[in-house]
Amino acid sequence: MNKIQIAILMGSDSDYPVMQKAEEVLKEFNIGYVTRVLSAHRTPKQTIQFIAFAEKKGVKIFIAGVVAAYTVKPVIGVPIMSKSMNGLDSLLSIVQMPPGVPVATVAIDGAKNAALLAIQILGTGNPGIAKNISVYKKKMERDVLKKDKMLNR
Amino acid sequence: MNKIQIAILMGSDSDYPVMQKAEEVLKEFNIGYVTRVLSAHRTPKQTIQFIAFAEKKGVKIFIAGVVAAYTVKPVIGVPIMSKSMNGLDSLLSIVQMPPGVPVATVAIDGAKNAALLAIQILGTGNPGIAKNISVYKKKMERDVLKKDKMLNR
Amino acid sequence: MNKIQIAILMGSDSDYPVMQKAEEVLKEFNIGYVTRVLSAHRTPKQTIQFIAFAEKKGVKIFIAGVVAAYTVKPVIGVPIMSKSMNGLDSLLSIVQMPPGVPVATVAIDGAKNAALLAIQILGTGNPGIAKNISVYKKKMERDVLKKDKMLNR
Amino acid sequence: MNKIQIAILMGSDSDYPVMQKAEEVLKEFNIGYVTRVLSAHRTPKQTIQFIAFAEKKGVKIFIAGVVAAYTVKPVIGVPIMSKSMNGLDSLLSIVQMPPGVPVATVAIDGAKNAALLAIQILGTGNPGIAKNISVYKKKMERDVLKKDKMLNR
Amino acid sequence: MNKIQIAILMGSDSDYPVMQKAEEVLKEFNIGYVTRVLSAHRTPKQTIQFIAFAEKKGVKIFIAGVVAAYTVKPVIGVPIMSKSMNGLDSLLSIVQMPPGVPVATVAIDGAKNAALLAIQILGTGNPGIAKNISVYKKKMERDVLKKDKMLNR
Amino acid sequence: MNKIQIAILMGSDSDYPVMQKAEEVLKEFNIGYVTRVLSAHRTPKQTIQFIAFAEKKGVKIFIAGVVAAYTVKPVIGVPIMSKSMNGLDSLLSIVQMPPGVPVATVAIDGAKNAALLAIQILGTGNPGIAKNISVYKKKMERDVLKKDKMLNR
Amino acid sequence: MNKIQIAILMGSDSDYPVMQKAEEVLKEFNIGYVTRVLSAHRTPKQTIQFIAFAEKKGVKIFIAGVVAAYTVKPVIGVPIMSKSMNGLDSLLSIVQMPPGVPVATVAIDGAKNAALLAIQILGTGNPGIAKNISVYKKKMERDVLKKDKMLNR
Amino acid sequence: MNKIQIAILMGSDSDYPVMQKAEEVLKEFNIGYVTRVLSAHRTPKQTIQFIAFAEKKGVKIFIAGVVAAYTVKPVIGVPIMSKSMNGLDSLLSIVQMPPGVPVATVAIDGAKNAALLAIQILGTGNPGIAKNISVYKKKMERDVLKKDKMLNR
Repeated sequence: MNKIQIAILMGSDSDYPVMQKAEEVLKEFNIGYVTRVLSAHRTPKQTIQFIAFAEKKGVKIFIAGVVAAYTVKPVIGVPIMSKSMNGLDSLLSIVQMPPGVPVATVAIDGAKNAALLAIQILGTGNPGIAKNISVYKKKMERDVLKKDKMLNR
Repeated sequence: MNKIQIAILMGSDSDYPVMQKAEEVLKEFNIGYVTRVLSAHRTPKQTIQFIAFAEKKGVKIFIAGVVAAYTVKPVIGVPIMSKSMNGLDSLLSIVQMPPGVPVATVAIDGAKNAALLAIQILGTGNPGIAKNISVYKKKMERDVLKKDKMLNR
Repeated sequence: MNKIQIAILMGSDSDYPVMQKAEEVLKEFNIGYVTRVLSAHRTPKQTIQFIAFAEKKGVKIFIAGVVAAYTVKPVIGVPIMSKSMNGLDSLLSIVQMPPGVPVATVAIDGAKNAALLAIQILGTGNPGIAKNISVYKKKMERDVLKKDKMLNR
Repeated sequence: MNKIQIAILMGSDSDYPVMQKAEEVLKEFNIGYVTRVLSAHRTPKQTIQFIAFAEKKGVKIFIAGVVAAYTVKPVIGVPIMSKSMNGLDSLLSIVQMPPGVPVATVAIDGAKNAALLAIQILGTGNPGIAKNISVYKKKMERDVLKKDKMLNR
Repeated sequence: MNKIQIAILMGSDSDYPVMQKAEEVLKEFNIGYVTRVLSAHRTPKQTIQFIAFAEKKGVKIFIAGVVAAYTVKPVIGVPIMSKSMNGLDSLLSIVQMPPGVPVATVAIDGAKNAALLAIQILGTGNPGIAKNISVYKKKMERDVLKKDKMLNR
Repeated sequence: MNKIQIAILMGSDSDYPVMQKAEEVLKEFNIGYVTRVLSAHRTPKQTIQFIAFAEKKGVKIFIAGVVAAYTVKPVIGVPIMSKSMNGLDSLLSIVQMPPGVPVATVAIDGAKNAALLAIQILGTGNPGIAKNISVYKKKMERDVLKKDKMLNR
Repeated sequence: MNKIQIAILMGSDSDYPVMQKAEEVLKEFNIGYVTRVLSAHRTPKQTIQFIAFAEKKGVKIFIAGVVAAYTVKPVIGVPIMSKSMNGLDSLLSIVQMPPGVPVATVAIDGAKNAALLAIQILGTGNPGIAKNISVYKKKMERDVLKKDKMLNR
Repeated sequence: MNKIQIAILMGSDSDYPVMQKAEEVLKEFNIGYVTRVLSAHRTPKQTIQFIAFAEKKGVKIFIAGVVAAYTVKPVIGVPIMSKSMNGLDSLLSIVQMPPGVPVATVAIDGAKNAALLAIQILGTGNPGIAKNISVYKKKMERDVLKKDKMLNR
């Protein structure tokens, strides 16, 4: 497997169906990642330990809303849709951080975009990855245009 | 001046008091940047042209909500507080992007965090910058602890 | 077919079940239209090209939230109901435009009203169409009254 | 004065400071208009009478949220910012109309855009007006670019 | 049948499943009522005519959000739950009336309470009805206590 | 003074500036009322005692959100604008009552409408009051039309 | 059975599926409790009587949103998810209490946390219970870690 | 000074004007407390260390939204009113905790109630404190009744 550059953390395994979309994109780009069920609320110590360990092992970006306090690496937050508040509670909890502790927040259930953003970030320092994103965007364009054609047959 | 790595785009010069906080952080880190008043709604052509131009000139990150369609570089969005909806309209417009077009959204009026996030992103490929962030975080810690002391004198 | 006067643009083919209600109304009024899957976010270039092309071909009104920057023709926005925020995100994104770039926004999933509004706009310069709207409104009245009768049988 | 083509209706004279921005735009385009304080809630009869009268006199568009039931002409709604709900109540009341009764809703306090939209609508049947809008958009572009220059002096 | 004292107006027959709960309560209290499908938006003339007619026939209270402009009788509004905004749009449209035109608003889908409120209003001038409400409240109490007992068997 | 028919209850004297608008309307209609500072939360016993006492003394309507549990008379609720949630918290607390306990809710800070609604309710059993409301509505109409004239001088 | 220390009150037996999660936790901790269906709105007298009675019998904590006015014991509120407003109405009603009448509010449908909070409160005066909570937290940690392992097998 | 039983933690000294109301109540009850500026986001390590230290020193309750992960003691959260979202973001962040990590949330800016709740919790194991709360509630009652008298002089 490729060198792990991205760590995905979920507070609960019930978030996994959403987060798998991030994994799919990372696989498509051939970027090494690790996915962990670790809760900043329920297993805070293990979470903090893992972050320190992951940083040492070369993880460059975390996809995980609530760990920004423990790292100076970029943190990408994915608000998960909640039954009660449609995800607004989750969105506001993640995005409304105090100055000094940014979380790069994507759309509610936007795990796919979280992965793409992580890849774009890696691309700032890696021309090969940057090129792969351009290829991906072209493919995305073609997908839209194909659907346009199907509608207008 | 340093090489420009970050471009800040505002749709209106009325956003400048908020965005200056981003500039202050970038100066503190000695990161080259450029700030432009260009509106994706009111000057779309010039906006698109500038993005292409900026990419060529080496800009690596855009701080600007609405340009994600025109670049594969990371885009950081700062929702600006609006009088009518307290910034919720601005937040939702920027964060709720469709799959394939991520915008790394920070808090409402969170220009300072946008700059820090940009620097963290640059830091993923640049150990010198990464170190500066650690220093900055330490300083932030000391500021909090100083205020704690003042309260408990 | 009749001369195309209205262009319906959707960012994704998943919006089509909503937008078909607009098509039905336009057919009922015998107004020529074209429906395209073109995303201002994912296929921005093709979207801009299409708008210019459509204007040349005589399109007078666009039903499409995010193209107001590229045309001086009236633009009608239909917020599509989202799973996460019940359409509030979509509504605010479309309606809260900056001065100078109006979007005539209708209700969430209000594609039928978008079509009627487009026809009312055409009617301002075309007495035949204006008359057809009056006939349509009368029919709508009769439908309500029929349901009233059925309830009170 | 020019032939009156647009009628602006306000439920209360306290809305006038907002609605004056619509008047300014209409004056700039040299489009005849009339502004009335008539409340669909407090003076319903006079409101209905005025609409019928205005239609006879050649009014083509109404800028007024709550009169859509009484006319087949395009109706443009301007939600007015309320102290208690920041305009969300006003926005939802105007935009969430039932099928068959569209209201072209603009942003909260968006009277300027209401006027521009009205002019765009008139422009669909009048090439002279359409041309004036293009000129206006160009001027708006220059204003943005001028501010961009001032910032980067 | 008893003398009709209450008129229930619905803008669409799709509201009937909600409004039937109001009818059930009125039947239980033996209060004469009439239910009509008449839309202030789609059949404004017939709605206004019906209100005038109903007042002449002795209707004392209207259960109908949008007719307050046309009567000086108490008007009770029932916000109907909407798919897109969960009823918040409906609630705000009905309750946020301008001074001079009160609508007695009950909970979203609160047709049962609308009927009870109407009966309480009639009870202010009719001791027999007032007494029936006390009896009803007692029964409601007993229902709660019965459920309490069942839970604690 | 006239016989007291209406009791206004406030949970705090800070609500008085809002509630005075209700008193003004009741005075204009020459309806006897009493205003009390009694909190269902902070002085529950005294609140309950007062309600029982008031009912005996002939009070027919309560203007007070939180007393519906203790009376079968109509209860009118006035949500008071709060600093933190703009009145939405207050509105939802008052209007979203369970079945069996209706509260006739008016707009946020809508004390004037609460008084008018109370008078409309009294009018259902008192032709003299009903007539006064018609007179009042006519005066309100004239006020609107006067402002319309002033604007169009 | 153990001495009853906690009383759970529900306004309706339809809340029971949510509240059972509180019972489960209390059973797990072997804390005596009683659950009653008593509505502050529909059976106010019985509710007040029960609270006085429960206090005498040694109840130390109430899990029940709306009884804070009648006791000086800690009151824990569980907002129940409503169909119409997703629980926001319920949350705001319970949490936004006036000064002097605190309600310890937990998450929407958060009955499990309400029970845990009650146990934490008892633990402040009872080392045995405090120890049980630590044990419980450890078990919770192990559950998270077990899921983490299953994901990474 | 009295033994410290309560620790108040603020993420920023800008929260102090709100939190002082908690201190005032604790002083009035003669309960020992300590107030610290320590941010779970900006000084996470020091925050965790302080919590462990405070627990050892006998702190029984924390007034601090974001520390629930690090203690099994009761945690009371005070959402602070934010400029951008009126406190809704803060409220949802604090109250919507996952199962297993309760935070006893009070109203937005409700520091006074947070202190009263803390005292009620201490009162569950301390009859002297419990009595003081009853005295306090009586005083609060008298204050309301005094204001009632002043209004009705």
